[in-house]
Amino acid sequence: MLEVYPFDIEIGQYKVMLNLADARTLGLNAGDRVRVKAKGAAVTAILDTTTQMVKQGQIGIFTEAMRELKEAKMVDVLPAPKPASLCYIKMMMDKQKLNEDQIKAIVRDIVDNHLSDVELSAYITASYIHNMDSQETEWLTRAMIDTGDRIHFDTHPVVDKHSIGGVPGNKVSLVIVPVVAAAGLLIPKTSSRAITGAGGTADLMEILAPVEFSADEIKAEYALSIDPYSQMLASIMAKKGAVGADAVVVDMPVGPGTKLATSEAGRSLAKDLIDLGERLGIRMECAMTFGGSPVGRTIGPALEVREALALLEGKGGPNSLKEKSMALAGILLEMGGVAGKGDGSRIAEEILVSGKAHKKMLEIIEAQGGDPKVKSEDIQIGENKEDVLSPISGYIVAFFNKRIIEVARLAGAPADKKAGVIIHKKMGQQVKKDEPLLTICSSSEWDLNAAVKDAKRMMPIVVEGMLLERYPRITEI
Amino acid sequence: MLEVYPFDIEIGQYKVMLNLADARTLGLNAGDRVRVKAKGAAVTAILDTTTQMVKQGQIGIFTEAMRELKEAKMVDVLPAPKPASLCYIKMMMDKQKLNEDQIKAIVRDIVDNHLSDVELSAYITASYIHNMDSQETEWLTRAMIDTGDRIHFDTHPVVDKHSIGGVPGNKVSLVIVPVVAAAGLLIPKTSSRAITGAGGTADLMEILAPVEFSADEIKAEYALSIDPYSQMLASIMAKKGAVGADAVVVDMPVGPGTKLATSEAGRSLAKDLIDLGERLGIRMECAMTFGGSPVGRTIGPALEVREALALLEGKGGPNSLKEKSMALAGILLEMGGVAGKGDGSRIAEEILVSGKAHKKMLEIIEAQGGDPKVKSEDIQIGENKEDVLSPISGYIVAFFNKRIIEVARLAGAPADKKAGVIIHKKMGQQVKKDEPLLTICSSSEWDLNAAVKDAKRMMPIVVEGMLLERYPRITEI
Repeated sequence: MLEVYPFDIEIGQYKVMLNLADARTLGLNAGDRVRVKAKGAAVTAILDTTTQMVKQGQIGIFTEAMRELKEAKMVDVLPAPKPASLCYIKMMMDKQKLNEDQIKAIVRDIVDNHLSDVELSAYITASYIHNMDSQETEWLTRAMIDTGDRIHFDTHPVVDKHSIGGVPGNKVSLVIVPVVAAAGLLIPKTSSRAITGAGGTADLMEILAPVEFSADEIKAEYALSIDPYSQMLASIMAKKGAVGADAVVVDMPVGPGTKLATSEAGRSLAKDLIDLGERLGIRMECAMTFGGSPVGRTIGPALEVREALALLEGKGGPNSLKEKSMALAGILLEMGGVAGKGDGSRIAEEILVSGKAHKKMLEIIEAQGGDPKVKSEDIQIGENKEDVLSPISGYIVAFFNKRIIEVARLAGAPADKKAGVIIHKKMGQQVKKDEPLLTICSSSEWDLNAAVKDAKRMMPIVVEGMLLERYPRITEI
Repeated sequence: MLEVYPFDIEIGQYKVMLNLADARTLGLNAGDRVRVKAKGAAVTAILDTTTQMVKQGQIGIFTEAMRELKEAKMVDVLPAPKPASLCYIKMMMDKQKLNEDQIKAIVRDIVDNHLSDVELSAYITASYIHNMDSQETEWLTRAMIDTGDRIHFDTHPVVDKHSIGGVPGNKVSLVIVPVVAAAGLLIPKTSSRAITGAGGTADLMEILAPVEFSADEIKAEYALSIDPYSQMLASIMAKKGAVGADAVVVDMPVGPGTKLATSEAGRSLAKDLIDLGERLGIRMECAMTFGGSPVGRTIGPALEVREALALLEGKGGPNSLKEKSMALAGILLEMGGVAGKGDGSRIAEEILVSGKAHKKMLEIIEAQGGDPKVKSEDIQIGENKEDVLSPISGYIVAFFNKRIIEVARLAGAPADKKAGVIIHKKMGQQVKKDEPLLTICSSSEWDLNAAVKDAKRMMPIVVEGMLLERYPRITEI
């Protein structure tokens, strides 16, 4: 029996710590699994070893495992076998194909928190290097659907929209969802926060109503900044499968600076998504859209919501936002059977112009616990503002998405909901010297200054003939 | 400024924990790096987030990072860039070749503890899947030599021996080292503990004198139970490079149940080791040895030391131990220039028989702080003993290395130095019914029983005609 020494730290997994001498006596090494048994309670945990933190005869137990052991004072420790899924992960590394049960076992162990960070990382890395084939990807998707929360609707068809992301200011969901819902289709939009962008749909919607978040993403995936292809396919489709979607439109922004650099990359992804959809019984349509410059003229949560809401209110808005939203909503109307082939975007626009989409949006806001009387002009943006002016007269010849996102993030987006960038000039437009190219805003003067400095240094918008750099730099002379 | 909340837990890396709300405000995610600054001290740490463990305005700091921050009470936190080596690890995943500086950066960041477990795991997994080419492996080895501790000798040549492992009872180093040293060659044997076997040379030598251990192996490698090929080559050769070895003999046990199942696998490894040696200026000779059954007749630290010491003392010993030790020592004598081509093993045997090797062994024991008067019969073995008898008369037709190791480990080896297995019959030998096949010993009666039970069930030694299994099992009838 070992004396319990509780470590009151949430470590994200079942973990215990033994003195190195005790571990050696038990024939155990750090990283091994152990079965920890108390009276009427037990847990399988991952072992760490120490020479200092716990004495011989003691066992350090972290919060999550302690909870399972019901605050026991004395426990027994036995070696425990590794989960079978580790074998299957090793098989992936060796480029062997997995069967349905093996893939299910991996997903089940991930969901049940039975794999250590190190093991998860090996899985993600192996997935990244050796992509799964389409059969394996189908099984992976089904396993993710089976192990996650599911929503069941009696009404059909259920339609949904997904964006591959990578283009700034892509607030189209805020327009598409009310248009499609106003047409009588069920569209249970699941959405996420921005990871590398300046605001995901969830970051935006949160301005209008409370948003709930479910389980974390796999931390390892984020920590490594990699997104294995088959994992990406499976996690897109699992979300759609979980809500019982019958038809899905996928927005695929293509162009330099987006996630899909070329049309070929776009077509290849489209083919794989449609194939996976067929295997799962979900009708898919992929829409390649221009991703070379932002959608609309605003980037950052509050600014984007204001822009989308103004469009719904009939106050007009940038063509890029309106056209793209109507095109994607139109595809869903056609897929959902409420518009004839080729008629979708026209009907979508009718719904928008009629004010029905706006009415539906206010109903959605109310249903989610927000203020149903909200107006676009009520939405507050950062009080600290500064314009970035054009240094010369000319035409806009280059526009860098990633730099625009960086400026918005430096201003504080998406955590600072009021931070962001307003774009005054887009590709090909004429600009006069000292006319504003951008307006940056933020809740914090400090962040604003950092963003302005960055915008002036990185020049996300380039005017023809503009001096890009001088050697030696003026400041260095 | 954030208030420091110290977590007195050694977590094996620089780690801090922020409340999720604070992390979001700072635009940070779990897994990001942060620069934590106190008055006159700073550390770059990996961030974790929590909703419960630390309040807003606080920062939880684990032991290792706390030490660097000199017990500060208040700190500032800023986002810190990821180390460049992560980029290079990503390149490995994408199967791009790395240059010398990139490989150096990875090794440096590993040694300096700048990579998280998740990142290390990705590196090990990517290394396992995409082997490095010979140029990259050379750079990896050089980087490992440069970043580790080095020993410099004025006398040359320096010779060394390495075993690929996988064969039980392989105590040849305890014979080879004193023979070679008695011939006047410098042989600074570095060695390690057993990970999956029943005792490494270090586990054995520890019985005779204190043994010091340096830095841990990469935990992730162990946790995943994988050994990437180029990492293995580099870590073998880095140890040799670190002691300035001029000539190295590599013992490569080949056969079923060893790490090298076939002669082809052995030859391929030999070629790669010799190539890497050439690049590093180390002369290599690889000796493929029979690995199908144990070396000598004992397995387990005390038993093995007793057997090797008895051979040195001139009390004789198993042919397999003597022949293999003389063959390998002979190669080193030839490589070191103290024996003519083809004369090595004869001269090695002369040194053994003359008692010079025994005298040298006692000197080594004394130099290391052990008892220079130790005799083989003084070495204590486990007082709990039991024979495993042959159920029938016949010839030994099968011998399973892995099962023998398992029995020794169940008896307590290598942590229990006195635990192990004595083998009475080897392949092809005749045995009578009820003659002992094995003797198992242990310091613990409990462990002995477990080992005996396992030996009877798994049958590591098979006598021709022996009944292997009955359906239905007798116990089930």
